[in-house]
Amino acid sequence: MYTKYVADANPGVTAQVARFVAETTLDDVPEAVRHFAKRSILDGLGLAVAGSRSVAAGIARHVIAEYRCANHEASVLGTTEHLPARFAAFANGLAIHADDYDDTQLAAASDRVYGLLSHPTAPVLPAALALAERDDRSGAELLLAYLIGVEVTTKVAEAIDPRHYDQGFHSTATTGAIGAGAAASHSLGLDPVRTAIALGMAASQAAGLRENFGSMTKPFHAGRAAESGVFAGELAARGFTAAENILEAKRGFFQAAGGGYDAAAINGRLGHPWTFQEPGISIKPHPSGSLTHPGMGAFADLIVKHDLRPDQVRRITVGTNRHMPNALIHHQPRNGLQAKFSMEFCLAILLLERRARLAQFTDEVVNREDVQRLIRRIDFGVDPEAEAVGYNTMTTIIRVELADGETLETRAAFGKGSPQNPMSDQELIDKFLDCLEWGGLHPGRGREIADRILHLDREPSTRPLLARLTIRD
Amino acid sequence: MYTKYVADANPGVTAQVARFVAETTLDDVPEAVRHFAKRSILDGLGLAVAGSRSVAAGIARHVIAEYRCANHEASVLGTTEHLPARFAAFANGLAIHADDYDDTQLAAASDRVYGLLSHPTAPVLPAALALAERDDRSGAELLLAYLIGVEVTTKVAEAIDPRHYDQGFHSTATTGAIGAGAAASHSLGLDPVRTAIALGMAASQAAGLRENFGSMTKPFHAGRAAESGVFAGELAARGFTAAENILEAKRGFFQAAGGGYDAAAINGRLGHPWTFQEPGISIKPHPSGSLTHPGMGAFADLIVKHDLRPDQVRRITVGTNRHMPNALIHHQPRNGLQAKFSMEFCLAILLLERRARLAQFTDEVVNREDVQRLIRRIDFGVDPEAEAVGYNTMTTIIRVELADGETLETRAAFGKGSPQNPMSDQELIDKFLDCLEWGGLHPGRGREIADRILHLDREPSTRPLLARLTIRD
Repeated sequence: MYTKYVADANPGVTAQVARFVAETTLDDVPEAVRHFAKRSILDGLGLAVAGSRSVAAGIARHVIAEYRCANHEASVLGTTEHLPARFAAFANGLAIHADDYDDTQLAAASDRVYGLLSHPTAPVLPAALALAERDDRSGAELLLAYLIGVEVTTKVAEAIDPRHYDQGFHSTATTGAIGAGAAASHSLGLDPVRTAIALGMAASQAAGLRENFGSMTKPFHAGRAAESGVFAGELAARGFTAAENILEAKRGFFQAAGGGYDAAAINGRLGHPWTFQEPGISIKPHPSGSLTHPGMGAFADLIVKHDLRPDQVRRITVGTNRHMPNALIHHQPRNGLQAKFSMEFCLAILLLERRARLAQFTDEVVNREDVQRLIRRIDFGVDPEAEAVGYNTMTTIIRVELADGETLETRAAFGKGSPQNPMSDQELIDKFLDCLEWGGLHPGRGREIADRILHLDREPSTRPLLARLTIRD
Repeated sequence: MYTKYVADANPGVTAQVARFVAETTLDDVPEAVRHFAKRSILDGLGLAVAGSRSVAAGIARHVIAEYRCANHEASVLGTTEHLPARFAAFANGLAIHADDYDDTQLAAASDRVYGLLSHPTAPVLPAALALAERDDRSGAELLLAYLIGVEVTTKVAEAIDPRHYDQGFHSTATTGAIGAGAAASHSLGLDPVRTAIALGMAASQAAGLRENFGSMTKPFHAGRAAESGVFAGELAARGFTAAENILEAKRGFFQAAGGGYDAAAINGRLGHPWTFQEPGISIKPHPSGSLTHPGMGAFADLIVKHDLRPDQVRRITVGTNRHMPNALIHHQPRNGLQAKFSMEFCLAILLLERRARLAQFTDEVVNREDVQRLIRRIDFGVDPEAEAVGYNTMTTIIRVELADGETLETRAAFGKGSPQNPMSDQELIDKFLDCLEWGGLHPGRGREIADRILHLDREPSTRPLLARLTIRD
């Protein structure tokens, strides 16, 4: 007799994830983890408002408006629009990621590429949010669905073989779709089997290519991931079928999209510990790729310490491990989106303006002659010393050659906003208020909303909060 | 100085595809190719009607109906519903693939895995159709957009490294999204740069995992591919941005999803020759995986020749190359969807009923005791002789051990409906009429519609034809 295909080598990963999604309660979540999650939710909500002003979000809303949906169940933050949950999730997910200002999962091991890891809030929060608003869930229920989605996204990202990222997939989009499906499944109250099916459908929508970094399609990825998760949950709830072992299966997600996975990174690891606690999730002080942050922080300190002026600087070299120039691909950026993935721009603008916030990452600023000229004096590439440290740090070594011949040197492994050097709650609230203002909302309302979001689990309904984040002045 | 990343090794593939999409005219298409395309369109339209009755299509329409779209620009075939083009494309794409009865690209070389190649009509036709109806294009314009989409889908599928399929991606979904984006771009009249952007966005939505074969999520893949192509085209037309080199880029589609590609399979190959002409596209006489067809054809002939009855058969062995059991994964199917990917069921039902059409691939028939019992006597696996032939044929060797000790043997490399053994136009029309009847439309209207579709390029508008394929009796 012929040999049949054998059962998968490591059955049960998807079933384990599905049980975690369906059965976890808020009592299972340590208080510290809840607080981290509320900080990231606060950050995400502010970014959704700010990002609603991006050109990409405007075009996307325009196309969706043409469907003329009479179902207005969920808010598009920063606007007065209400859409079916699926499209609100899309619009808010795109907006949160539009400024490359959203939070970042940290690496758990020295062989895991930093950039492999996801920005978990952008795909997950909008899926949880839209369904919580539609079904009038409490703040505690939103918090739990979000926590579950982030935990699934981050553990799936830890587990998949780094080939996934190395060869071009955008993990925020791919693992984010699976996490958004997890959040939606929990929100919809699906049982473990239905949840596994929703995960199967979410994984079959998991897509997004890194070559689109620096274009509007990058934030589109996060929007589509959020949308795909909601769509998967809704179809699974209605009786759709899919494979119930999509993660570990021979022709499933880990294999197709990564060529394999590290079972030890996911088996028994969901909530043990929660990613929010260990290794943690960074929140960004600058609206640029997370890999720019350690260098920016160290360089900003150096500028202040030496009161450096642009005309004193002859040349700057920046060295990192090899994965960083593989993500920060714009060496001579020509617009604001490319600038977010340009180590050269990020350092140049700090030297020129001593700040790097939303107002600096615009096409106008990027194309200024002084900016372009300074960028040409900055040389970014691989440094053997940084390479040797491992890929779970963003070790960045900066050497500044001054016009007078002197050389200054600084280095950092982690940026401001990382768990090793966190932003305070007050700094987070300041960022939130900036985002509201950038998004066109009067920041006056922001302080009270921020406080309520940082105590989200006390809110009986998410609806009044979301109503405050749509423009109604 | 550090070494910057070098330009991609093979620039221009995406640009070449985009020019083909934007600049090809119907005058560039040989008459024979047009006829093949019209045959596949006829087949696809019938399947859209038949598939509208599937459980999956019903659930999907139910979820979409909840958006309450007031934009009714495109028809869902087999129903009275009209939806925004994007969702009509989704619903029709899902329906065309729902019965695993749609056409199949053939392999061009002996090292290309058959199953790697796509079912091109399911993702492409609905995208072209919805936009042709919305914008009131002529039959000739629909035909050209469809031809372009199929050509791009099939050449991209030929080019990508077979790892893509081997490790679990569903090519119909992934390369289909890119082809649907090509068809949409042509329909929308995008220039080559906007077309390249649409392709960039389509590739970032290209997803679908083979582990979902045998579930409702398989046809969902084709629907999502059609939808993603339309969405990409619409956003690109509105000014969205994306990478303009998504196919060949270092972090682009071929690399991320396949680990590489064969440039010779796509460079200079679009329309040279058209895939419809060489190696050709199969149309199926049975609603099951294309890999079942050679075995089914040979076995059906054997049954008739020897007037075989189930109780005469002790055991059947079926041997193929190793890729076939890797796709036909259901050795003991328990429902109609699994049966479509079960060589064992397909042979069993032929022996029991001497026919295998839509009425045989139902849950009830699959679970019949006589069917299940006969399936257990069929052994399907890899045969060294079939393996040695190469992966561009579906060589299938069947040995039937009779109760009286005699053994019968038969074999085939291609099934009925393949270019080597094509269905006649009349056989195609008969299948179309069957599909209309299965879909609940009175087949009486079918003959005239079929004739008009086979002369589609004469129709000044597609709208009257599509109106005849919605239920309005």
